[in-house]
Amino acid sequence: MARFCVTGGAGFIGSNLADALAARGHEVVVLDDFRTGRHEFIEELLGKPGTELIEGDLLDTDAVRRAVDGADMVFHLQANADVRFGFDRPTVDIEQNVIATSNVLEAMRATGCRRIGFSSTGSVYGEPEIFPTPEHAPIPAQTSLYGTSKMAAEGIISSYVSGFDFVGIPFRFVSILGERYTHGHVFDFYRALKKDPTQLTVLGDGKQNKSYLYVGDCVAGILAATDHHWDDAGSFNVYNLGHDETLVVDDSVATITAKLGLTPEIHHTGGSRGWKGDSPLIHLDTTKIKSLGWAPSLTIQQALHKTLEWFDANPEIVLPQELRA
Amino acid sequence: MARFCVTGGAGFIGSNLADALAARGHEVVVLDDFRTGRHEFIEELLGKPGTELIEGDLLDTDAVRRAVDGADMVFHLQANADVRFGFDRPTVDIEQNVIATSNVLEAMRATGCRRIGFSSTGSVYGEPEIFPTPEHAPIPAQTSLYGTSKMAAEGIISSYVSGFDFVGIPFRFVSILGERYTHGHVFDFYRALKKDPTQLTVLGDGKQNKSYLYVGDCVAGILAATDHHWDDAGSFNVYNLGHDETLVVDDSVATITAKLGLTPEIHHTGGSRGWKGDSPLIHLDTTKIKSLGWAPSLTIQQALHKTLEWFDANPEIVLPQELRA
Repeated sequence: MARFCVTGGAGFIGSNLADALAARGHEVVVLDDFRTGRHEFIEELLGKPGTELIEGDLLDTDAVRRAVDGADMVFHLQANADVRFGFDRPTVDIEQNVIATSNVLEAMRATGCRRIGFSSTGSVYGEPEIFPTPEHAPIPAQTSLYGTSKMAAEGIISSYVSGFDFVGIPFRFVSILGERYTHGHVFDFYRALKKDPTQLTVLGDGKQNKSYLYVGDCVAGILAATDHHWDDAGSFNVYNLGHDETLVVDDSVATITAKLGLTPEIHHTGGSRGWKGDSPLIHLDTTKIKSLGWAPSLTIQQALHKTLEWFDANPEIVLPQELRA
Repeated sequence: MARFCVTGGAGFIGSNLADALAARGHEVVVLDDFRTGRHEFIEELLGKPGTELIEGDLLDTDAVRRAVDGADMVFHLQANADVRFGFDRPTVDIEQNVIATSNVLEAMRATGCRRIGFSSTGSVYGEPEIFPTPEHAPIPAQTSLYGTSKMAAEGIISSYVSGFDFVGIPFRFVSILGERYTHGHVFDFYRALKKDPTQLTVLGDGKQNKSYLYVGDCVAGILAATDHHWDDAGSFNVYNLGHDETLVVDDSVATITAKLGLTPEIHHTGGSRGWKGDSPLIHLDTTKIKSLGWAPSLTIQQALHKTLEWFDANPEIVLPQELRA
């Protein structure tokens, strides 16, 4: 049994990871500011012995230190999740993702915790020329402040590995789907169709090709790498976490409308990007994580269906009051 | 004629660049906090019409905005220069190099200036596997907070290119030598030998192989890329600036002692690194900057001699009171 701190532990991926850690019999401290995290997601978790919630911001260094103190490992998943709005408020990603990561690492250094897992993103590759993109792709030109801030955070972690013998394991995710997914285009489409079943606006030309991964598979990948590197003090290992499959936006729209039994008129806003800084294709090479014996258990379509089923089962989370049945 | 703001413009490279810009007939605003910059370095510059000094810190957003206002281009060279001490105070590089760069970019966005040149470093490559290292080397594991912070700053600049149609030109420097060099091992060796001509302590095993470049050649490279990309709105171009030659630390020690006419006993502290996070070899591929017609005018030995001649001519800057003749 070990003790884990999960920042963003009341969020989508964080709460699923926290559940998995508790199911393995570990102690889990959730640190969350509930900007996007939800109390419902950790209600069951907090009923278990050895679990604890610290409500606080990562810029509040005291809260971070309390959360990290005594942990054998920190999973640092809390981040600014408003990926699309980086250019509206360019300093937010720097604060929430770079300074916050520095704060977590400083708290770890002060309390003697030296293992960190980190939620990075396939967006760090900017607009890569190699698909599927491997971890050692050429140094990219960054195209979003989100990707920039995640790459910067990875670099700070890597420096702590080098300077302070940390174990550093950043995971570069594709889009994650599944239970508690509450942020991203599948969520937006579902809500929009519940509001107006006759039409749907799709950002970009709908041809953006992306890879997705089921949250359970994401968590399994995180745990596989964690187990593998547990005693590797002074090691820094980045892992892509994604799917060999990809899905075109228009196809996910088709799946969603079919599931809802709707035939809306689809409007495309046009252009190859959903928004400025959006990458038209994210498809990651997962050879490295697979070498640890990991493989996704669900297809992307299955992950999408799981997500839609969870939406249907949780209208009080997914839908505004007026749209609930 | 254009108007330039040079952050760190009273520093080593900054003041040489400011002089070159003024010599071309441009207006130059120097922004410097004089933490490492020196008034002597810009005294002559400030005697020329169209030049201005703003004394201020890059974390003082008002000062940054005043300095940037009206400029056609900003050369952002001010940074935490205490490269070796990153692990003693890990947050300093983040503040001085990442937040500071964000502040400069935000001031530029607010005032409508959209061209930025940036002093990055060969340290962004961590411990590369390819020598000489090209700009598109594989994404490295960062080994120093200095390199990490510079890579992060490059990423933020790249994001502004993508989001706001900036022209972004980061330069990854090797160690720069020449007039006004006041920071680094050649400086340290010179002072140590002036203090005690009988012995010299060299960090590491003395076999660290590094590349150096004369400051005049560095400035010429910066200006070549600036001219080339002046009208390329929305372009991001990283340039390595270094020398095809490299020099082993022990050989630079030999040159320095020969120049001073000394035969000290040399003590090596041992190990392949001068300090934690030091890269045992920095040698950059300069094919890209050479494609613009640039080439270094001095050999590394010539650059070293120029540096030592400047030391001899400026004891009041280089030596503490008690060691001056």
